[in-house]
Amino acid sequence: MALDGNAIVGQSGGPTAVINASLAGVIEESERHSEIKGVYGAINGVEGLLQENIADLGSESDDTISLLPNTPSAALGSCRKKLSGEDFVRLLQIFKAYNIRYWFYIGGNDSADTSHKVGLLAEEAGWEMRVVGIPKTVDNDLAYTDHCPGYGSVARFNALATRDAGRDTAAMHTVDTVKIVETMGRNAGWITAATALARDEPADPPHLIYLPERVFDREAFLADVKREVDKGRGCVIAVCEGLRDAEGEPLVSFKHAVGTDSFGHKQLGGVGDYLVSLIAEELGIKARFDKAGTIQRAFGLAQSEVDVAEAKMVGEAAVRRACDGVSDKMITLERVSQDPYRCETGLAPLEEVANAERPVPDEFISADGNDVTAAFIDYARPLIGGPLPPYARLQLNRAPKKT
Amino acid sequence: MALDGNAIVGQSGGPTAVINASLAGVIEESERHSEIKGVYGAINGVEGLLQENIADLGSESDDTISLLPNTPSAALGSCRKKLSGEDFVRLLQIFKAYNIRYWFYIGGNDSADTSHKVGLLAEEAGWEMRVVGIPKTVDNDLAYTDHCPGYGSVARFNALATRDAGRDTAAMHTVDTVKIVETMGRNAGWITAATALARDEPADPPHLIYLPERVFDREAFLADVKREVDKGRGCVIAVCEGLRDAEGEPLVSFKHAVGTDSFGHKQLGGVGDYLVSLIAEELGIKARFDKAGTIQRAFGLAQSEVDVAEAKMVGEAAVRRACDGVSDKMITLERVSQDPYRCETGLAPLEEVANAERPVPDEFISADGNDVTAAFIDYARPLIGGPLPPYARLQLNRAPKKT
Repeated sequence: MALDGNAIVGQSGGPTAVINASLAGVIEESERHSEIKGVYGAINGVEGLLQENIADLGSESDDTISLLPNTPSAALGSCRKKLSGEDFVRLLQIFKAYNIRYWFYIGGNDSADTSHKVGLLAEEAGWEMRVVGIPKTVDNDLAYTDHCPGYGSVARFNALATRDAGRDTAAMHTVDTVKIVETMGRNAGWITAATALARDEPADPPHLIYLPERVFDREAFLADVKREVDKGRGCVIAVCEGLRDAEGEPLVSFKHAVGTDSFGHKQLGGVGDYLVSLIAEELGIKARFDKAGTIQRAFGLAQSEVDVAEAKMVGEAAVRRACDGVSDKMITLERVSQDPYRCETGLAPLEEVANAERPVPDEFISADGNDVTAAFIDYARPLIGGPLPPYARLQLNRAPKKT
Repeated sequence: MALDGNAIVGQSGGPTAVINASLAGVIEESERHSEIKGVYGAINGVEGLLQENIADLGSESDDTISLLPNTPSAALGSCRKKLSGEDFVRLLQIFKAYNIRYWFYIGGNDSADTSHKVGLLAEEAGWEMRVVGIPKTVDNDLAYTDHCPGYGSVARFNALATRDAGRDTAAMHTVDTVKIVETMGRNAGWITAATALARDEPADPPHLIYLPERVFDREAFLADVKREVDKGRGCVIAVCEGLRDAEGEPLVSFKHAVGTDSFGHKQLGGVGDYLVSLIAEELGIKARFDKAGTIQRAFGLAQSEVDVAEAKMVGEAAVRRACDGVSDKMITLERVSQDPYRCETGLAPLEEVANAERPVPDEFISADGNDVTAAFIDYARPLIGGPLPPYARLQLNRAPKKT
């Protein structure tokens, strides 16, 4: 039966290129359900909500809302906030003060945890409220869903960027022989794996791909690089910022360099820096690294159309399901067809999503641990929303005649 | 009078997103001049030419040539090669063997120097040859031209990336308060300056911009950052990889950290890394850095339409002028109208281009040295080929009523 009241929507954790498509989905679908009287935005997620930093999204213009899906990075602002017991008391006061009966929180597993606890709190207090989580993370490491909105676009960016960095390296390989492309991904290699989508042909860059699901093996790495460089066309290597050695330590220059700086700077030199030095010292080969950093997760121009559509779809589904009486669940994506590719929405318990992580599975990683498999390509290709723009490939195979 | 023979075209130095548009211009314009019998491509510039690594470009398909302008990064391969006396002897043999009468070299000032010397050599040897340079450099530091093909696209990339990195920072400012965007530019700040084109409104990111035309002043920098952070909406700082301190030393972590590593790694930690550490230590504020590296110069999706058109135009002009009898010159761009923006081609002596550099002039840098001026924006805006795609701006200004 219909639950009359207002809805609050928030965005949490690292932004994505399509997180606002989910927000647009929530706003537009809410307007189709008469029991939802108002849709309020929590500014900077629960952090702002706790300070009653709330805005009535119904007052935004249609033009603004229509631009939202193609506007990257959390338009409501985001946060990383773990709620304390005191915070929960405060939240309940706010729910009552604004008659909040619907809770939509767009985020990853920390956000699922927050939503689950908010739902428990409301239930214990006898405050009827429907709590539905909306998946979002470029890391693609949420369990119970085929993939996460946000991933398709960061994957598209990295496919594009790696293809172009690869062309750059091919052109300059007599000068800068090795290119390291460092991608995001603290614990899971999904983003790094997506660089493989840069390839049109098997020999295309990236030539080597290293994921944090495999321990970084210095000697094997150097042998891989040497073998690739010896092919004489430059070598492009995609690496995850979260790569670790056998002791589980991140590959940062200071840990692995012989000298250590007296401040013990933790942030100095990441994986890219480290590998450039390693290759220079051990192989005597010049390398450079590109680290797009947060640009990769928020680059509007690289939005995947599939990703935009699905991000909107999960936002809409959250509202629809909540109005049906669903609570304490996160919306998931279920791949119902591979060719043609199509996903539908499903549901997973928030608590289970909160407590699970999904690394890249073994069947997506090559036996040598330096590439992905065809199965990964089949999985990921549809998510980037169509082929990359075509490029010219000169044949350069007809030598002119001497006169 | 018409000089019958073959033309050679090469690409040199760092690639750009539009360097192949110049190549397409040379190929297509050559077909319109009956005195040019064949157009040959030098693979990896003079480095390949010296090994007779040459391809007849007339055998490439029309489809391939039509894709060239939108295909980033030197399709012929590039090089950084300073010619020796022996090399010149070899080149002359090759010119005679293949009846090369036209020389088109797409590059920056080192390439202008090469072309000039090749022209002198031919003249001294009594080998009639027309030598015309075609400007290309993302650094935009060539003299005698309004701007350089390649710059408009790297500028567009950095405007887009900084706008998106700025949205990311705005959303996450309670967690990651400062974002450093490190751009290319060894000696000139043109690329870094272009991040200012990210702004729709004056308070938009980037909030601070530092160019290598000004000495990096640690205390002034920290005061600037503190002031911006205190505004409570995150701080985005664009910096050039070529920033230097008062001693002319690059800002790398090892030089400026108290500890030094025993290998004396020169490549460890660039400007971004250094500033992240500096801000953490001196202000206790969390910062991150994005360094798109070579991605910025070769990102196809960020091509400026104006840049593509001009890159093609300078390639065509080189052939046309050479057929008119011009030699020992580089094609330049002359801005003949600002509104509507329009450039025509001109000519400059290769030797003068080779021996000049053009830093960002004083009138384009703010008095405080931490931003660009409106005059720079007027100069650079037309080069990026139209406005950035529009984004939603939520008003978030109507608080909901309590019940």
